[in-house]
Amino acid sequence: MSDFRISLDKANTIISAAFAKGKDAGMKPLSCVVVDAGGHVIAFQRQDGTSFLRLDIARGKAAGALALGVNSRRIEEMAKDRPHFISALAHLTPGGLAPVAGGVIVKGPDGLPIGAVGVTGDTSDNDEVAALAGIAAAGLTPL
Amino acid sequence: MSDFRISLDKANTIISAAFAKGKDAGMKPLSCVVVDAGGHVIAFQRQDGTSFLRLDIARGKAAGALALGVNSRRIEEMAKDRPHFISALAHLTPGGLAPVAGGVIVKGPDGLPIGAVGVTGDTSDNDEVAALAGIAAAGLTPL
Amino acid sequence: MSDFRISLDKANTIISAAFAKGKDAGMKPLSCVVVDAGGHVIAFQRQDGTSFLRLDIARGKAAGALALGVNSRRIEEMAKDRPHFISALAHLTPGGLAPVAGGVIVKGPDGLPIGAVGVTGDTSDNDEVAALAGIAAAGLTPL
Amino acid sequence: MSDFRISLDKANTIISAAFAKGKDAGMKPLSCVVVDAGGHVIAFQRQDGTSFLRLDIARGKAAGALALGVNSRRIEEMAKDRPHFISALAHLTPGGLAPVAGGVIVKGPDGLPIGAVGVTGDTSDNDEVAALAGIAAAGLTPL
Repeated sequence: MSDFRISLDKANTIISAAFAKGKDAGMKPLSCVVVDAGGHVIAFQRQDGTSFLRLDIARGKAAGALALGVNSRRIEEMAKDRPHFISALAHLTPGGLAPVAGGVIVKGPDGLPIGAVGVTGDTSDNDEVAALAGIAAAGLTPL
Repeated sequence: MSDFRISLDKANTIISAAFAKGKDAGMKPLSCVVVDAGGHVIAFQRQDGTSFLRLDIARGKAAGALALGVNSRRIEEMAKDRPHFISALAHLTPGGLAPVAGGVIVKGPDGLPIGAVGVTGDTSDNDEVAALAGIAAAGLTPL
Repeated sequence: MSDFRISLDKANTIISAAFAKGKDAGMKPLSCVVVDAGGHVIAFQRQDGTSFLRLDIARGKAAGALALGVNSRRIEEMAKDRPHFISALAHLTPGGLAPVAGGVIVKGPDGLPIGAVGVTGDTSDNDEVAALAGIAAAGLTPL
Repeated sequence: MSDFRISLDKANTIISAAFAKGKDAGMKPLSCVVVDAGGHVIAFQRQDGTSFLRLDIARGKAAGALALGVNSRRIEEMAKDRPHFISALAHLTPGGLAPVAGGVIVKGPDGLPIGAVGVTGDTSDNDEVAALAGIAAAGLTPL
């Protein structure tokens, strides 16, 4: 795979590293998705004991970030500022938006997105920490 | 049925007991749904004189609780705290969320969900009282 | 309740009698829904061991029948004759259509619908037999 | 995890073994999903070079099988026999149906479903071979 695509190997590395970070930091069981630049899922894992909507939430963070071009932490700020706007966009985004931290865009060599990572399960701040740990472990660059 | 599944017999017991509790306590006519761990309906009854959206509301409480892994009373708190987040999740949840009290998760022998009960019709506090009475009558354990 | 509405008591009678008919006739485990004239669920039960889509299928038969004003057996004939038409209507009907036998309209004193019954689980011919048995047991009149 | 739930460890084993089977047999790049009894995704992986709809197709096989209670190979037969019926059910099933072979139900100790596996990428016959290899590698029982 070129540096312009996230391979399945790298996606699996991201998920394993995000889960390892969660375990080390004493977080609750996590779920992690890696999506390509189009917001389509490459890999997803949901740890034992987590509730059933986790793929949708994780994807709503990751694909939502790509849909708007900013990390989901920024989308939460936008949602607080203009709830009617983000609520409407959530209906437009395939699979919906999850406007809270934990969705981080991955940049390619040209600075444009090649995909994104979404983590859910603990506080959204911690979810983002785990996502960033996953991206770093794969040698990739977050937005 | 094993202890990891709610049988139809137990679901019917839950509904009858929830309605009996409502009658004893002078509540308005109630509706009650019992769903499996995946949020799919096992049994539902709507008492005479109730409005037509009752299945959707009751299921939105019960399946919503399972979707997020907490009772719907807690989802109401989350909705007050971060309305943009719960509004977005409602869009992601199959059948939607009803973020008010009255949706209670039923735990299995391993402490993980085997289903949930949703009641609607009176105040949401009373709806929850009726749901808990139903779960107790069936010898099951609420979250 | 007037004769122009199906009471919860009658709905429960319908379901019990449909299940009894299924048991007597050696049918597979059944699911049965009773809906009001607007296609909204009054009561539903899914027997142990049945798959998770049963409410949707049963309601698609019952509410679909009311949506078009003919029993679902007739909708199947229409679907064979003009599949593009019924496929399109399925997208228009809230909750969708299930264009096979087993959905039977219940008539009121004026000959117009007061609700419908949908059964699924065995062959669609047998499903319809069980639905008719339920309606008869409640002293109601099928279309 | 009890025998009534598919753990993430087992889900990952299923996917790895399905992919290994595909490689050994010279199949095209595969995608594999493992869902719980409610049709909700536990884990998914899409091999490099596959098209973007793969999660939806794999889930449509696996969750569709659970929705109707038969493997997706059987749903394909039903679709050939009564296309209007399966087309309508696809509209009712959350996430849709993929009515071709490759979706296999996993049974629990009581013979009822605890989840399902869906594979897509090669011929649907080969997809099913890979799904069955995954289930066997995890020590689980297919329907």
